[in-house]
Amino acid sequence: MKFNNKNISVSKTATIGDNVKIGDNTIIYDNVHIGNNTIIANDCIIGEPVNSYYTQKEYKNPKTVIGDNSLIRSHCIVYAGNKIGENFSSGHRVTIRENTTFGKNCNVGTLSDIQGYSNFGDFCRLHSNVHIGQKSNVGNFVFIYPYVVFTNDPHPPSNILNGITIGDYSVIAVHSILLPGVKIGRNCLVGANSTVGKSFEDELVIVGSPAKALFSVREIKSKEKDKISHYPWMYNFERGMPWEGKGYDNWLNNK
Amino acid sequence: MKFNNKNISVSKTATIGDNVKIGDNTIIYDNVHIGNNTIIANDCIIGEPVNSYYTQKEYKNPKTVIGDNSLIRSHCIVYAGNKIGENFSSGHRVTIRENTTFGKNCNVGTLSDIQGYSNFGDFCRLHSNVHIGQKSNVGNFVFIYPYVVFTNDPHPPSNILNGITIGDYSVIAVHSILLPGVKIGRNCLVGANSTVGKSFEDELVIVGSPAKALFSVREIKSKEKDKISHYPWMYNFERGMPWEGKGYDNWLNNK
Amino acid sequence: MKFNNKNISVSKTATIGDNVKIGDNTIIYDNVHIGNNTIIANDCIIGEPVNSYYTQKEYKNPKTVIGDNSLIRSHCIVYAGNKIGENFSSGHRVTIRENTTFGKNCNVGTLSDIQGYSNFGDFCRLHSNVHIGQKSNVGNFVFIYPYVVFTNDPHPPSNILNGITIGDYSVIAVHSILLPGVKIGRNCLVGANSTVGKSFEDELVIVGSPAKALFSVREIKSKEKDKISHYPWMYNFERGMPWEGKGYDNWLNNK
Repeated sequence: MKFNNKNISVSKTATIGDNVKIGDNTIIYDNVHIGNNTIIANDCIIGEPVNSYYTQKEYKNPKTVIGDNSLIRSHCIVYAGNKIGENFSSGHRVTIRENTTFGKNCNVGTLSDIQGYSNFGDFCRLHSNVHIGQKSNVGNFVFIYPYVVFTNDPHPPSNILNGITIGDYSVIAVHSILLPGVKIGRNCLVGANSTVGKSFEDELVIVGSPAKALFSVREIKSKEKDKISHYPWMYNFERGMPWEGKGYDNWLNNK
Repeated sequence: MKFNNKNISVSKTATIGDNVKIGDNTIIYDNVHIGNNTIIANDCIIGEPVNSYYTQKEYKNPKTVIGDNSLIRSHCIVYAGNKIGENFSSGHRVTIRENTTFGKNCNVGTLSDIQGYSNFGDFCRLHSNVHIGQKSNVGNFVFIYPYVVFTNDPHPPSNILNGITIGDYSVIAVHSILLPGVKIGRNCLVGANSTVGKSFEDELVIVGSPAKALFSVREIKSKEKDKISHYPWMYNFERGMPWEGKGYDNWLNNK
Repeated sequence: MKFNNKNISVSKTATIGDNVKIGDNTIIYDNVHIGNNTIIANDCIIGEPVNSYYTQKEYKNPKTVIGDNSLIRSHCIVYAGNKIGENFSSGHRVTIRENTTFGKNCNVGTLSDIQGYSNFGDFCRLHSNVHIGQKSNVGNFVFIYPYVVFTNDPHPPSNILNGITIGDYSVIAVHSILLPGVKIGRNCLVGANSTVGKSFEDELVIVGSPAKALFSVREIKSKEKDKISHYPWMYNFERGMPWEGKGYDNWLNNK
């Protein structure tokens, strides 16, 4: 239904892998590479020219890569200069500005707004309507929930860009704000609606405005299984994870 | 201006009522029914295929119904499998995922993101940029304001989906978060920027992070009329409501 | 790349200035004026008909003006009846409803939602995903950061629209909410995630839920320069400002 080869525009300098599907009304600009078996749904823009396009006479679109086996849903805008790893998937109307890298197997939800100049590891899950400021560095297996904002300017407006750093396996719950320069360790849980103004070590539950470390994540009991902790969550959640069907320790020991 | 029959795509298996208008660049996919006198503005997608479309060979698009006399503004995406009642209206760029039902006379504002598998009664008003997690159950005459988030996972990420329940006539003010499994009674007011972590009975003003019941809604004085309470609001607000021009009690007694 | 004259629709009653570029799939409706040297990127709608279009037989689209030297990025919707000053620029998917005025040199970020019937001075900077309720009045050189909401209804739902007023040079940080009728003075800083329920005088740092005035903005030390205050910010930030390269006092004295 979505692939009728209607009103599609693909630049002559784009390279399109094998078995790629491109939806109606989608535009692929110069210097884009689309990996094998990837689906770009309808009404997307891939390789959106960066700002200098509007002012430079001799503009050349930077290289953009969308990895193999990815699925970009309708109405997304992926700027030029991004490198997106294999098995990526997105919701609708996502905006990813230039010089952003995603590792493999990442998801970005509907309406999320990645401001560019940021890096994400593998298996990150950004839910709907997440706002990631420039100069953010996000580890692997990080979950970020709706309306979270990563900031970078400590006294706006200024010329400082102090991005956010998030360690592997950490979880940032809905509506939380990470203030400029904050570093969150591994295996942390930032609770809903928190305003995080300082950095925190590993395995902490971080809650409030201003946010404080309440206790170890291991103190949160599972609501699915008796008498165990839910966190670190890798022992209790495996959908879409590389340890699916074999357990986290098994996967870790055989990596 | 908006209806020039340009670049419209309507599936042969869609059924289009009498006197329907469809805007330019809009796509109506398989198995969609559009009710009589309904307007689908430009650049919309109605009956967006669900995820299995990308993986199943023999995919069949579930039935989608848009009721009579509805108005869907531009750039909305309504997934297949939704049943939307009559007199519905939407803002722009709304996303409604699969298996959502709306009663009659509901409105959903610009950018709102309904994650699917949820039910809304009649005369619900969702303002701009509301995020409704899966498994939500919303009564009749419920008002939900911008950037409100309904969550469902008590210790993310997990496999639990504990949706939100909202009673008739309740109002959820801007930027509030309802944590997983919360039930709000009838005639409640959840104040701006609240984080609601437990359930509450009827007619309460619920405010804060974590949210507490402050007092009865009847203690909020009207700023429009002397010496009366504003809540329950049905006695003081009637625009677009079925008791418009005749009063709430009158309507209730003659239903 | 973006200007191929493909699937563009321009009303016969629109007036298009000299050296204007219009992107593919963009629609310019009746009675729109586009200023000289302005760029309207692809997939935009300029002069979107107001609600009465759907109900009035003899609808006439109100006059819309986009000033000279402006840049409207892709997928924006600008309603009819707006007056937007010169050197305006926008991100993607911005919605600006009717009867809004912007002075000169304003920016509005991706996904922002201006509900109409509001006024902005010169050199305002609205970042991504800002929600401005009706009847707002914003001064000059005002910065508004992501997910800020300006409300207007003191006991929703009601018929009252008490808009927000913001003085020149004030800054509203991420995720803050201004409650109905609030007036913020000049040179203020509203901190992240604040819920502002009353009005405040000039030069204050306003933080919390409910927000309180903590101290003078002059007590916030610069992180860029030794031993000076960062605020008023005009002495420490000049990118894109009319005092760029000559200093704020110099500019002020020679206006």
